Amino acid sequence: MSNIELIDDNNLKCRFAIFKNANLKLASGEVLKNFKLAFNTFGTLNENKSNAILICHALTGDQYVTGNNPITGKDGWWARMVGPDKPIDTNKFFVICSNVLGGCAGSTGPKEKNDSGQDIYGADFPSVTIQDMVNAQSKLLDALKIDQLCSVVGGSMGAMQALQWSIDFPDKIKSVIHIAGALKHSAQNIAFHEVGRQAIMNDLNWHKGNYASNNSIPERGLAVARMIAHITYLSEDAMHRKFGRRLQSRDIISFGFDADFQIESYLRHQGRSFVERFDANSYLYLTRAMDYFDHSESFKKTLEFINNSNEHLKYLVISFTSDWLFPTRENKEIVEILNSLSKNVSFLEIETDKGHDSFLLDEPDLDFAIKGFLESNYRNEYE
Amino acid sequence: MSNIELIDDNNLKCRFAIFKNANLKLASGEVLKNFKLAFNTFGTLNENKSNAILICHALTGDQYVTGNNPITGKDGWWARMVGPDKPIDTNKFFVICSNVLGGCAGSTGPKEKNDSGQDIYGADFPSVTIQDMVNAQSKLLDALKIDQLCSVVGGSMGAMQALQWSIDFPDKIKSVIHIAGALKHSAQNIAFHEVGRQAIMNDLNWHKGNYASNNSIPERGLAVARMIAHITYLSEDAMHRKFGRRLQSRDIISFGFDADFQIESYLRHQGRSFVERFDANSYLYLTRAMDYFDHSESFKKTLEFINNSNEHLKYLVISFTSDWLFPTRENKEIVEILNSLSKNVSFLEIETDKGHDSFLLDEPDLDFAIKGFLESNYRNEYE
Repeated sequence: MSNIELIDDNNLKCRFAIFKNANLKLASGEVLKNFKLAFNTFGTLNENKSNAILICHALTGDQYVTGNNPITGKDGWWARMVGPDKPIDTNKFFVICSNVLGGCAGSTGPKEKNDSGQDIYGADFPSVTIQDMVNAQSKLLDALKIDQLCSVVGGSMGAMQALQWSIDFPDKIKSVIHIAGALKHSAQNIAFHEVGRQAIMNDLNWHKGNYASNNSIPERGLAVARMIAHITYLSEDAMHRKFGRRLQSRDIISFGFDADFQIESYLRHQGRSFVERFDANSYLYLTRAMDYFDHSESFKKTLEFINNSNEHLKYLVISFTSDWLFPTRENKEIVEILNSLSKNVSFLEIETDKGHDSFLLDEPDLDFAIKGFLESNYRNEYE
Repeated sequence: MSNIELIDDNNLKCRFAIFKNANLKLASGEVLKNFKLAFNTFGTLNENKSNAILICHALTGDQYVTGNNPITGKDGWWARMVGPDKPIDTNKFFVICSNVLGGCAGSTGPKEKNDSGQDIYGADFPSVTIQDMVNAQSKLLDALKIDQLCSVVGGSMGAMQALQWSIDFPDKIKSVIHIAGALKHSAQNIAFHEVGRQAIMNDLNWHKGNYASNNSIPERGLAVARMIAHITYLSEDAMHRKFGRRLQSRDIISFGFDADFQIESYLRHQGRSFVERFDANSYLYLTRAMDYFDHSESFKKTLEFINNSNEHLKYLVISFTSDWLFPTRENKEIVEILNSLSKNVSFLEIETDKGHDSFLLDEPDLDFAIKGFLESNYRNEYE
């Protein structure tokens, strides 16, 4: 008999949903007997529980979507998008964001203790998929006694989760905002992830994933993985504009291997600061979950099948012109399938040179589209 | 008094030019007192020494441009381009190719013994630039008593050397074949190199570059560096065509961190096989030389200045549509400057999905262009 406990953690400034005897069956066939999700909510749930929005975070995100993140001491990762009078307005909507299964900000993942309560999972943690993450989130909604979300929103890995929601739980959502995602992870994206994983697993401090019991951290490998990924989050134009060949704190090249160029110094900083806040094994598990994501064959068939169950499901699909990880053509594949099924879908390609990271940055067109979509569709929900 | 010795090495199947008391002044200001270049020649120098072509190799190339490479046991890196009746026809031309200064196939570099003859240079090797490589090559030509090359040819880092030849020694060459290069290394290219270097320098077996005296090899870091670089040598389309999301030796995903996908298996193989033939420190020095390459401000001025000294210098500039390391627009910057100075320049953009690596692969248009350029310009030289 499953048993769900909701607790507040004042130190971590978040809440926990603890599922005991939950028997969460994973896509791999393995079963998590017990698991917990760390989450936060913002705004107020209205009386008929119709103003709830679930925000799904990207690869390195967490439940601290807005407000202060106590781990980094900085603003949440989407503070510019979510909050009172922000595009996702917490005066109107009740926003939920949970750390994904397999993550490292409190939810059950390789960094946490296993069922025995004695040992850290490490590399013994089972493989998780986007579907598993969404399945766990749906149990969180059950625990919060919310039957239907007015929207599920996400960019990048968050977009994958949002799409998965519309496949697995179409009755539990009224709309999907899918930003900079795809039906599948491409060969090139798998390649970049694989090199990052190799950097981590080749670090002698990784100890086959059981670094916690060896009192070591594969931080050098994790920093390299982050540096690789960071290049892919920017566009070449943005990198040229921001850094070009400008030198860092020097007038002439050093003829050595210090960070002569600003871009080198920037990447080293990105690597260093990442290892302070992220777990190397989580990086392996979550990149793998993204690699495994593939609805290129099944999406159309699945949606035909569920067509009748939720006729009014609305989609907003957004892409960025300079995003080379999830380019417009891959986002459009989703739109084309939805169009072919006469689904309700809006598509917006935003002109920007900021690359994949645009969804996290100052893009007024993005704000306008999200705010407009939510407020025109759900005016009655929050009024 | 400098003293040059030319010797044959039957084991390594190459020749060596050994420069004693040469005092090669490097761009950094440091001086190499003694140095050696490993090189090979193919074909026969004609009587008036007018049929010599210098081929400059790319980052991981060597003097084994064609024929058998005794280190790998395989064909030379440009065997399809160079040889009897090949586009660069050794029945007609005398082809010279030397391992670059800083390389690891016999020429003086971090892997070789320093002036004392006792210790390996390691990280004490001075920084080298493309200009230094070309300067050393010109001394090799002097040793071979060749006053003028009918062409200097190179792709990628080889293109940088070919361009540098036309700047530093315009009187010593009649033409330049510049393939997939640029006036400068871009911010994104520096970024990818930097991550590769960090992977090597973060390997605990690197020992600040002095791994030889520690009896270790930073092969894990070097493999990761090679994997990163290899992604950039391909195009996304070619990767999709060759690998897509196809699985490697299995029917279903493993829910683990083995190489499930063919692209993962391919990259791991590229990493593993590279460490058998390349030195990690050389990788640091040569990537740095490429990063430092920048004629974006100086090229036009320099060529105006040398305009009179070699009016008949001809250029052929070739780019590939799917090359995102050295895209057409960057190759064209060179063409535009040459055109503005009324220099003799031909430009060809080749339509292909094979990415930067196209210059090494089966591209009939490339063969045709190189053969045509050489043979129409130098018919009299080899007849």
